[in-house]
Amino acid sequence: MSRVQGTESFSFNHTMLRIKDPKKSLKFYQEIIGMELLDKHSGGDFTLYFLAFPQKGDENLSAEEKAKNRFNREGILELTHNHGTEDDPNFKGYANGNEDPGRGFGHIAISVDDVEKTCERFEQMGVRFKKRPSDGKMRHIAFILDEDNYWIEVVPKKMSL
Amino acid sequence: MSRVQGTESFSFNHTMLRIKDPKKSLKFYQEIIGMELLDKHSGGDFTLYFLAFPQKGDENLSAEEKAKNRFNREGILELTHNHGTEDDPNFKGYANGNEDPGRGFGHIAISVDDVEKTCERFEQMGVRFKKRPSDGKMRHIAFILDEDNYWIEVVPKKMSL
Repeated sequence: MSRVQGTESFSFNHTMLRIKDPKKSLKFYQEIIGMELLDKHSGGDFTLYFLAFPQKGDENLSAEEKAKNRFNREGILELTHNHGTEDDPNFKGYANGNEDPGRGFGHIAISVDDVEKTCERFEQMGVRFKKRPSDGKMRHIAFILDEDNYWIEVVPKKMSL
Repeated sequence: MSRVQGTESFSFNHTMLRIKDPKKSLKFYQEIIGMELLDKHSGGDFTLYFLAFPQKGDENLSAEEKAKNRFNREGILELTHNHGTEDDPNFKGYANGNEDPGRGFGHIAISVDDVEKTCERFEQMGVRFKKRPSDGKMRHIAFILDEDNYWIEVVPKKMSL
């Protein structure tokens, strides 16, 4: 398909989610999900973290080049930390988008070669599940919860609906 | 960077947002944003729409191959339409994630070659702005609103922070 005129250069660059505690969230997205921290930006009372899965051809890029390249690709997750939420006893946590009031955003999704094996690894690492592959009718997919209770769908790369 | 063991095949496949009216939203994301509708899935009382920007190498794929390939790439936007919201006078609309209660999800972002020109085109097409490039301190970025008032950030591909 040819591009719509005026949109030739557009990429779906990133999705932004607010997080309560960057220590917990970075550990989760780096060690459990396997994303790489590409860049970090401090804006006074907030810090932005930019993560993504390594891409083919990335291996030869320096950390600086990867940080620069983050505007020029898709699949970036931006985590926004408003300083202080992590140890504020009055902070209620963020809405995950799936309950009223606050319904809107639903989830992010990762696609994987083997959902079963992936979920076994998540189980072993103590990840919380919203829906295990064995729950309900949709046996080929799962939903896990991140540190802020955002839903992450786990779908097979070879999907047949 | 080598991949974390057990996450070698993972891709950040998609982001899901609920929409009130698919006619309006598909028109917006296809004609104004320039995404392509790759696939559609009906699940009884809801319909899912999968959109993305065309990728290099896509030109030779059939519609069926593109639909199949949607699990095997990044940058997919999944729009969920729960049937009936579009003409339900009691439906209050979805939370966009940026107001209490319901704060959590922030925005999706598209990166573009030329933010100024892109925003001029959006203006001409009657797109609603949350922040024009000329508003506030961050002159190099903009935020537009989609049909459900979700924020879409417009960022330059060559970004200098």
